Amino acid sequence: MKRTAFFISDGTGITAGTLGNSLLSQFDGIEFKKVTLPYIDTLEKAHAVALQINAAIEEDQVRPIILDTIVNEDIRACIAQCNGMMIDVFATFIKPLEKELGVHSTYTVGKSHGIQEMNRYKDRIESVNFAIDNDDGARTQQYDRADIILVGVSRSGKTPSCLYMAMQYGIRAANYPFTEEDMALQGLPDSLEPHRAKLYGLTIDPFQLAAIRHERRANSRYASLDQCTLEVRTIERLFRQEQIPYINTTTFSVEEIATRIISEARLVRQI
Amino acid sequence: MKRTAFFISDGTGITAGTLGNSLLSQFDGIEFKKVTLPYIDTLEKAHAVALQINAAIEEDQVRPIILDTIVNEDIRACIAQCNGMMIDVFATFIKPLEKELGVHSTYTVGKSHGIQEMNRYKDRIESVNFAIDNDDGARTQQYDRADIILVGVSRSGKTPSCLYMAMQYGIRAANYPFTEEDMALQGLPDSLEPHRAKLYGLTIDPFQLAAIRHERRANSRYASLDQCTLEVRTIERLFRQEQIPYINTTTFSVEEIATRIISEARLVRQI
Repeated sequence: MKRTAFFISDGTGITAGTLGNSLLSQFDGIEFKKVTLPYIDTLEKAHAVALQINAAIEEDQVRPIILDTIVNEDIRACIAQCNGMMIDVFATFIKPLEKELGVHSTYTVGKSHGIQEMNRYKDRIESVNFAIDNDDGARTQQYDRADIILVGVSRSGKTPSCLYMAMQYGIRAANYPFTEEDMALQGLPDSLEPHRAKLYGLTIDPFQLAAIRHERRANSRYASLDQCTLEVRTIERLFRQEQIPYINTTTFSVEEIATRIISEARLVRQI
Repeated sequence: MKRTAFFISDGTGITAGTLGNSLLSQFDGIEFKKVTLPYIDTLEKAHAVALQINAAIEEDQVRPIILDTIVNEDIRACIAQCNGMMIDVFATFIKPLEKELGVHSTYTVGKSHGIQEMNRYKDRIESVNFAIDNDDGARTQQYDRADIILVGVSRSGKTPSCLYMAMQYGIRAANYPFTEEDMALQGLPDSLEPHRAKLYGLTIDPFQLAAIRHERRANSRYASLDQCTLEVRTIERLFRQEQIPYINTTTFSVEEIATRIISEARLVRQI
């Protein structure tokens, strides 16, 4: 059975979408068609949304799930006219919070960021730039400024993990790809040795590595299962021998890899 | 008044953190100390969390806000012993959803990703790689594969916006920085002309641009207010003249810039 789910917001829709996806992922057997509608901040847009919801009801022949974080009551009311199952996130939690905190909420739509947000923006840009500058072992001389250095074979997930840590948490994450030459060494490459305490390893199932590499360079030695198996075995042995903590990324999303590393390496979220 | 807020999860903590930050941002006058505790998936970890919460109560002399997305009832019960204001996100919404959908939720902790998630991972890595490869006008020959090409002066927020779109939505976003030579032209640079329909402009307040550039290259002509003002005026004139849609990034977070562009340029979220 197909079911449409609308995540509706007067802002970016990130909160509604994150919560909605998280809740619906608890229902395995149902196929959801998810529609995120951000910036619904006028009655005119709300009317258009109502039409869209009614069209979905017509098509699905079952009422949709509507999860919203809209603050303005008139806009909500306009959408609530539709025959959907409406989950009102803010109303559910804001009232008890107001009571607990003993103040009224400001309920401000699409707040622009003040000084705190400006600093957050700068921290974030700085750490994203750091991740790009220090991607793929490009500039090992900046490693003393890094919060963490991810190490692993090519295509084991280092770059997206670094960028996610930078973007979401303002962490300065560098990464260093182990080449065949590096792995022929007894021990760590010279450029990594002084930064031993910052190293964190990524490993991956050789089959998956081969599939990922195959998309980059089809039918190459680089993408062959033999080569991938050899590299993964070698790097895992090195991680154990050098006592570098590591994580197997095979079944994890980028979010999970990043948050697990932050948690296990006890990194401090900067933003 | 200081108040501690705990966002607790048996997974990454992203849902709890996103919702928690969003709810608390509605309360302007209160200073929150926010603590995200991911991967609380054993009773042992729950006991440690309870100690941490009790320590916060001792210090703040007021009960904390606890927002959790923990599935396991024993683990929740252990944390619920503390004297906090507990907001149970899943229990609040899962029961009504079960009734609506006519099925029981699977309530699975830290689900590993199946084939769908694997494809999502690949799409995402591919788009992140695309953003890095096509950062800063590096490789204009790939522009025919781009979903969007952000244009603007140096440091106007192009790179983080591209990476955010790639990471969160699997959108292939390239960016092209306008140099002084480009802006001396009548019209668009040759490499952009064929891709006119994909262009989206970023502009920024000259004061903020000067502040950001100052951090990169202090006291340079590049970072001077005169130079920044001149560049911003020139690029905005160009956007209008060439009918390139554009957004002023000054008061927006990276999330907002990215989601607004996606919404206004009607890009399709790929993941």
